[in-house]
Amino acid sequence: MLCGEAEACPVVITTRIRLARNLAGHPFPGWAKEAQRRTVLDLCLGALGGVPQLRGAVTLAMDTLSQTEKLILAESHLISRELMESRPFAGIVTRPEAGCSIMVNEEDHLRIQLMQGGLALEELWERASELDQSMEGRLDYAFSPRLGYLTSCPTNLGTGIRASAMMHLPGLVMKNHIDQLVRMVSQLGIAVRGHLGEGSAAKGSIFQISNQQTLGEDEESIIRRLHNVIDAITEQELNARQCLLEENEPQLMDKIGRARGVLQNGHLLSSDEAMDILSLIRLAADLGLVPSQWRGRADRLMIEAQPGHMQHRVAAELGATRRDVLRAVQMREEFAQLPALTEVTGVANL
Amino acid sequence: MLCGEAEACPVVITTRIRLARNLAGHPFPGWAKEAQRRTVLDLCLGALGGVPQLRGAVTLAMDTLSQTEKLILAESHLISRELMESRPFAGIVTRPEAGCSIMVNEEDHLRIQLMQGGLALEELWERASELDQSMEGRLDYAFSPRLGYLTSCPTNLGTGIRASAMMHLPGLVMKNHIDQLVRMVSQLGIAVRGHLGEGSAAKGSIFQISNQQTLGEDEESIIRRLHNVIDAITEQELNARQCLLEENEPQLMDKIGRARGVLQNGHLLSSDEAMDILSLIRLAADLGLVPSQWRGRADRLMIEAQPGHMQHRVAAELGATRRDVLRAVQMREEFAQLPALTEVTGVANL
Repeated sequence: MLCGEAEACPVVITTRIRLARNLAGHPFPGWAKEAQRRTVLDLCLGALGGVPQLRGAVTLAMDTLSQTEKLILAESHLISRELMESRPFAGIVTRPEAGCSIMVNEEDHLRIQLMQGGLALEELWERASELDQSMEGRLDYAFSPRLGYLTSCPTNLGTGIRASAMMHLPGLVMKNHIDQLVRMVSQLGIAVRGHLGEGSAAKGSIFQISNQQTLGEDEESIIRRLHNVIDAITEQELNARQCLLEENEPQLMDKIGRARGVLQNGHLLSSDEAMDILSLIRLAADLGLVPSQWRGRADRLMIEAQPGHMQHRVAAELGATRRDVLRAVQMREEFAQLPALTEVTGVANL
Repeated sequence: MLCGEAEACPVVITTRIRLARNLAGHPFPGWAKEAQRRTVLDLCLGALGGVPQLRGAVTLAMDTLSQTEKLILAESHLISRELMESRPFAGIVTRPEAGCSIMVNEEDHLRIQLMQGGLALEELWERASELDQSMEGRLDYAFSPRLGYLTSCPTNLGTGIRASAMMHLPGLVMKNHIDQLVRMVSQLGIAVRGHLGEGSAAKGSIFQISNQQTLGEDEESIIRRLHNVIDAITEQELNARQCLLEENEPQLMDKIGRARGVLQNGHLLSSDEAMDILSLIRLAADLGLVPSQWRGRADRLMIEAQPGHMQHRVAAELGATRRDVLRAVQMREEFAQLPALTEVTGVANL
């Protein structure tokens, strides 16, 4: 789902395609009675078992998972926060190594999701489309020739597609250009959200950029427009970084240097602060201030330093302070060998 | 004046004795005309030249010094901030290596000052008294058998003595006990001030503790009472530190660890932040979290990282940002070998 540590990409961290699908003749999950939800779950899991793209996949019934296990799936972006809280008879079929997961009985009967490191919209759409066709051969989708795929929420009606990129935009954040960006892209039918999706704050300068419209346009057009916007944002982000390096070098070096200081010396670290600090290490790698392999380590730890992963690692429910202590220990270990920043210019040039 | 790096003391950083003296038949410096100030300066410098305790001393006329040179003397506690701003014909006779300086035409005609690392009130008083007697044999002091030594400000009348200790009280600061301390000791006629004396804020958790009364008591009684109060404050400070270690260990380790992180990784460091961070390194040495020789380095840099010393080192007037950049470079160099904190307890004990 994410790149290996060596291949993590600057700016676009991951790309994701999500398709919303429902079964004809069954009420949407939010309206369904328990028995109806169970019927849909059984139908879906039965059909998915025969889909070639899902060979080797793991099937999990949400009702059998602990809170920590659900949290780990959510932190890994394999399930949504909504599925964590869902009513009985929800499930997931997943091949985590392929960045593939299918949620059953979330907001829609089926949510197909494919994820990949870096920018890979077209490739993911091709894979998603193939998987969707295989599934459609085995399940009776709710489809209207006039409206397209029917969905629980009208904002997903039509193609049912949401394509998104998780973008790392510390330059635009530091230059205070995010509000301007949000206004600009919303006019193009593109939404900018925090890294946990709708309604979430942007921790670590990470934003989810996605299409808002699903109706009246085919998938290729939606993806093409999103791709163009992502390219434009990437360019703006790189400009902002260059500008910071030229006009605010000591401030930038200080921010990043102190981030290294906290990783190697902190004894209490909240997950929010960890996100912000790992974000700065990612930026340092992009700018050549530290070797590029540290970008991937920062990406991995942005996920592993979250509460669910922390609790799984020590096999215990932890209070906030103990999590913060253990997170600091983990960071000191993981970043003990992170070298001091390469100097961009000498003091003599100031 | 300060200890060598190896001998710096916990809690009481330095002790100081100051005696205010004036010449009979000459107006106080604040009321004197320029010619009268010149006469007093000439009289004093002439007499001080023959004082055996001042053999090898340097004599400086304030009018010949640059602003940076005055700042360095003030940052080193050899002259007061008032003398920096004084009218013409002020001067100083000093043996910095002996922690000895005599200001001429500050608020009084003569301010005799002796300073030493650690707690040494009685020893300093003995030295100050001997020096004062040598001077009294060569100068006609303004003295009233009823009131004692006459001084420009009535708060110094009588003995003219101010005995003080510069105390490092991070434990009491972190426990929020300073206000309580100020109230308690003021009832005993003892004042608590910031590290730059009257009216200054307490940077780096450093406080000046001194007698308020100079009249109606002999010097030995004043010093004895101050000594008792300093001992009591020292005990409270050590208790506060023990309490922090027992009840707030992760918070304390985090604070000190991050201080190390900033020293080794910062690229912009204001003198205020430097004071706070060096204060934490001093505390770390006291607590055995880093080897004790780092206490003396922190003490030295609390003085050398101030603006006057910075500017002298690079032989240039510097704007605030360039000072902050150079201060960060200096700290990265001075503390590159500062080891990681010794763990007090393991995570397992939490």
